[in-house]
Amino acid sequence: MIIVLRAGASDEEVEDVCRRIVAMGYAPHTIRGTLRTVVGAIGDDRGKERLRALESLECVEAVTPILQPYKLASREVRHDPTEVRVGDVTIGGKTIVVMAGPCSVESRSQLLETAERVKAAGAHVLRGGAFKPRTSPYAFQGLEEEGLKLLAEARRESGLPVVTEVMTVDKVDAVAEHADILQIGARNIQNFPLLRRVGEAGKPVLLKRGMATSIQEWLLSAEYVLSRGNPNVILCERGIRTFETTTRFTLDLNAVPVVKRLSHLPIVVDPSHGTGHWEYVEAMAMAGVAAGADGLIIEVHPRPEEALSDGPQSLKPERFVALMARVRRVAQALDREL
Amino acid sequence: MIIVLRAGASDEEVEDVCRRIVAMGYAPHTIRGTLRTVVGAIGDDRGKERLRALESLECVEAVTPILQPYKLASREVRHDPTEVRVGDVTIGGKTIVVMAGPCSVESRSQLLETAERVKAAGAHVLRGGAFKPRTSPYAFQGLEEEGLKLLAEARRESGLPVVTEVMTVDKVDAVAEHADILQIGARNIQNFPLLRRVGEAGKPVLLKRGMATSIQEWLLSAEYVLSRGNPNVILCERGIRTFETTTRFTLDLNAVPVVKRLSHLPIVVDPSHGTGHWEYVEAMAMAGVAAGADGLIIEVHPRPEEALSDGPQSLKPERFVALMARVRRVAQALDREL
Amino acid sequence: MIIVLRAGASDEEVEDVCRRIVAMGYAPHTIRGTLRTVVGAIGDDRGKERLRALESLECVEAVTPILQPYKLASREVRHDPTEVRVGDVTIGGKTIVVMAGPCSVESRSQLLETAERVKAAGAHVLRGGAFKPRTSPYAFQGLEEEGLKLLAEARRESGLPVVTEVMTVDKVDAVAEHADILQIGARNIQNFPLLRRVGEAGKPVLLKRGMATSIQEWLLSAEYVLSRGNPNVILCERGIRTFETTTRFTLDLNAVPVVKRLSHLPIVVDPSHGTGHWEYVEAMAMAGVAAGADGLIIEVHPRPEEALSDGPQSLKPERFVALMARVRRVAQALDREL
Amino acid sequence: MIIVLRAGASDEEVEDVCRRIVAMGYAPHTIRGTLRTVVGAIGDDRGKERLRALESLECVEAVTPILQPYKLASREVRHDPTEVRVGDVTIGGKTIVVMAGPCSVESRSQLLETAERVKAAGAHVLRGGAFKPRTSPYAFQGLEEEGLKLLAEARRESGLPVVTEVMTVDKVDAVAEHADILQIGARNIQNFPLLRRVGEAGKPVLLKRGMATSIQEWLLSAEYVLSRGNPNVILCERGIRTFETTTRFTLDLNAVPVVKRLSHLPIVVDPSHGTGHWEYVEAMAMAGVAAGADGLIIEVHPRPEEALSDGPQSLKPERFVALMARVRRVAQALDREL
Repeated sequence: MIIVLRAGASDEEVEDVCRRIVAMGYAPHTIRGTLRTVVGAIGDDRGKERLRALESLECVEAVTPILQPYKLASREVRHDPTEVRVGDVTIGGKTIVVMAGPCSVESRSQLLETAERVKAAGAHVLRGGAFKPRTSPYAFQGLEEEGLKLLAEARRESGLPVVTEVMTVDKVDAVAEHADILQIGARNIQNFPLLRRVGEAGKPVLLKRGMATSIQEWLLSAEYVLSRGNPNVILCERGIRTFETTTRFTLDLNAVPVVKRLSHLPIVVDPSHGTGHWEYVEAMAMAGVAAGADGLIIEVHPRPEEALSDGPQSLKPERFVALMARVRRVAQALDREL
Repeated sequence: MIIVLRAGASDEEVEDVCRRIVAMGYAPHTIRGTLRTVVGAIGDDRGKERLRALESLECVEAVTPILQPYKLASREVRHDPTEVRVGDVTIGGKTIVVMAGPCSVESRSQLLETAERVKAAGAHVLRGGAFKPRTSPYAFQGLEEEGLKLLAEARRESGLPVVTEVMTVDKVDAVAEHADILQIGARNIQNFPLLRRVGEAGKPVLLKRGMATSIQEWLLSAEYVLSRGNPNVILCERGIRTFETTTRFTLDLNAVPVVKRLSHLPIVVDPSHGTGHWEYVEAMAMAGVAAGADGLIIEVHPRPEEALSDGPQSLKPERFVALMARVRRVAQALDREL
Repeated sequence: MIIVLRAGASDEEVEDVCRRIVAMGYAPHTIRGTLRTVVGAIGDDRGKERLRALESLECVEAVTPILQPYKLASREVRHDPTEVRVGDVTIGGKTIVVMAGPCSVESRSQLLETAERVKAAGAHVLRGGAFKPRTSPYAFQGLEEEGLKLLAEARRESGLPVVTEVMTVDKVDAVAEHADILQIGARNIQNFPLLRRVGEAGKPVLLKRGMATSIQEWLLSAEYVLSRGNPNVILCERGIRTFETTTRFTLDLNAVPVVKRLSHLPIVVDPSHGTGHWEYVEAMAMAGVAAGADGLIIEVHPRPEEALSDGPQSLKPERFVALMARVRRVAQALDREL
Repeated sequence: MIIVLRAGASDEEVEDVCRRIVAMGYAPHTIRGTLRTVVGAIGDDRGKERLRALESLECVEAVTPILQPYKLASREVRHDPTEVRVGDVTIGGKTIVVMAGPCSVESRSQLLETAERVKAAGAHVLRGGAFKPRTSPYAFQGLEEEGLKLLAEARRESGLPVVTEVMTVDKVDAVAEHADILQIGARNIQNFPLLRRVGEAGKPVLLKRGMATSIQEWLLSAEYVLSRGNPNVILCERGIRTFETTTRFTLDLNAVPVVKRLSHLPIVVDPSHGTGHWEYVEAMAMAGVAAGADGLIIEVHPRPEEALSDGPQSLKPERFVALMARVRRVAQALDREL
């Protein structure tokens, strides 16, 4: 941490700050500049949260951290990329992994038809929501346990591993029984009890960035999972909230190279939620792969115009086939596979 | 809902859209404009979420809702302002209600001292966190059940009702046993199972706006609570995330008159989290009251520079006394009391 | 500046960085922490922009400034508040100064009627746009020179000083001839040649914050004017762009106490543009004054429903009268006058 | 336009609204829904700006436009993509056009060396700033006319056409004399007098999106240029301002497919300004091309650590060579060339 003192801070004030730094277990190091005195607090400031309280002293102008506050998620702690294995599928390796399926599990026929179609098109993982976080209490809230059973059936029939969202601590075991990857939705990115619990569930976790979550906060949420002993975290960029309204969210592909620099965790991209419009999904899927993503998660529905949720952003199966062909070519141009 | 067709939509396409609108239970009404055909879907579109799926038809350019999607939270459904009663305190009436106390309950002495000081200064409700949602897993996470017991003691000693955060469904009963108002934090604003559960807990709910939550979404989250039979929802504006970094968040006081126009629910303002710096708290507290807020929630700590959380934004008790005096004068200028 | 080196930076790399710091005229000061080495570059870093280029070295993780980059606008350089005098009106003193009038000058009768009404209600300055920056080329672009003449006439008739926008370098003299305060609109906040030019025009400048302008950038734009020898800069907060859509912009009242802390310049608030809806103007005007603003700028139109621009946010004269009465009471509660 | 009336609007109010619509030259069409009456105003609402003023009537809840407000920039008016020709280079055709060079022209040797290196690597256009809009008045402001002359020399020597920024109306002719493409910077995206002037200058215009400019506003700014008779507008996405701070801006690649859907104008991507860090430029350049961009604009400097502006985001020439090789492969995967 760097503690910047206000202009005109007295010697006693500087000493007081240094004393407090020592009391918190760090070593102070003072630099007297032309216009400001700054004090470095030496030590591992990933635990130095408490030093921030010094900002409440009248003589302190700002407290600025030097280190990133996460450890296990950091590329400094683990240099080699993490590969998450789910059955035969490896996320974070050479292959671009595509997860596809409907937003919500709506019925047996809808799910099985979609599973068959996306598998035929080359998808590696089946997605589908049984528990649905819906902005309105009057909207379809998912088939819940019944949906989980349908996912289990689709998994058996198709052979595809399944990713689905878990929204509450008390459902983690039920979801983990039927799913291969536990999805934490954007709205739960800072639901810390839930993060801790999936950190103990023994299944890989797909961690969607929240709509106002900074990359640093996102990696700290990953740290909650990692620090409970679960190393299999997959990050998922799904769009942040900005002023732009032609897209539902602003898919932030910059997050892909930033995460690759800061962390060893694999990252996938969700162009369906990120844009909110089926017409933009293919372009942004290709862009996500070109930016360096390890995979994609894409909404596919046999009849989007009748979907109970997210119809506008769902692809018809035939469009998904076309997307896969184009994404494959981009992957190959990057010496990756699909 | 207004369904806008693309330029050049054929008669068959218009008919197809109308047929689908009828199939979903609404009455279509077509307007052929100079450059576009639009179809109104007549009916109560607060349940018309499914009509949005029509946007996935190639002939549809956009589906635009006309009505606000919430009902119980709306001023159209209930015109008179809701008054939430907590013991002798009424939130949403003539009196500006001030809730004050430490960010976290840290110790018995810290809490009791703060309770005594804020009560003496005129606060009506004691705040303090026992369960703390912290961005980093390495930060202080609250005293949890022990904190609840200290809050109960402080409540007995001071006579002040208590507001404290509940983070999980399974702790709602425990928190409701000791607290007078259940706080839903900004990070849980779209934790829908939790919202449903506090809707059944029989205690007033303080619902903090999320950092990227639109006012419409916020009122829909209130609707989750209201629709479970709990009419006692207090909204709390606590800052949204923007590009500006001199403040921790951007306290959005515009939300006060907007909420007053759209809803009958009371609204309080949190200038401590909203700005993140103690120096700005008094000015924004006064501004919040002048904007029409029904109350304030303010962090006070006897020694902010030693606080385990949010030290930089906590007021010392003597500053809180000064704030109360100034806020009282603003309240009186608006024919309100403190 | 603080230069943070990457983990594992070698001694040669640290020395190279120090050598470059010396070459740019600063004194390096190295702190070797547990996990990182940081180098402070000592000297006045308000001119140290070039040090930022060190971030392009592979061994450098980040370059972090310590000082605010503006000088003349800073409260450190000038502690006492600046008072801007315009005829009998002082902006930045005890009196809350209210500037009011139509968005655009539309006709002689519209302007003269509005001037008379706002003067009668107690406004101190007449506002009105002759040159209008309009998002669409098909919208009304202002009466231009003809509008300036009408403003001059309204000024003579009413005795109110006039503030109006200047959009181009070549019109600065013409506008300065008829106006008492030159307004720089939000869209020109980083039109640096224009800022330099109004810095030489000998008239006070009202500098509107841009919709994505940080407070630091805003003060740097003020610095452009100040550094040309014009000390009479009035800042104007008029709303920033966020994700929220119930208001046209998000009026950022936090900027008021932040500016008061960082700078000696007066600041006024524009609740008309900030909210975009007449129904929210009064509440936010009162809030602006309670936050500590030195004045208000408010759009008033005799027939808003026929306005050629910004009708939805314009007040009718009778509403403006009511607003003035309520704002006066808030001002008095703060020991200020109206 | 759709005018939504408030609940309980009386028949007289509906009639009054209809009368006003007729008076403005449109045909009203009323739909009485279950909870609201809406009135469509039929006619070309790209000129219907004035209808928005009806929102100031107490009986009107909202006025919602149906049509996009631009015409000449719209794909409805011109379906085929615009190709902008600059010497032998065509922007908007099959070839991905790469513009490269230093942020600022700093010296003859710096510019000529860079021009030679980027040409050898396959760039099609040389970029370099002579007039520089700098946030701080104390930063290097460009070599101005001297810079233009150096650009002219570099153009002769290298044979590359030149793109450079013009900041003021009075310099348009001087810049147009030496440059092949006139760049309008992000800070001038709503400098309407400048847009009009470059619309008359007879040279292609590169129009950078502002940091808080919606896509609709961006296309309206293009409309200013197009409506002055200049059809050769190239859009440039360069990053918008969001809450995320690991990148300088948030490069919004979603804008690429959105613009392709709404407009016929070519679009290029600037990953240098968009990310602000050289390490992210290559990934985002590839992503931009994969998203469907027609070109790239990239900052290259022989010694970024000594650059007078934007050093942190500038590539060394050897990195630019590597980028070109990788981008070429992505282009080919999309059946485009480089």
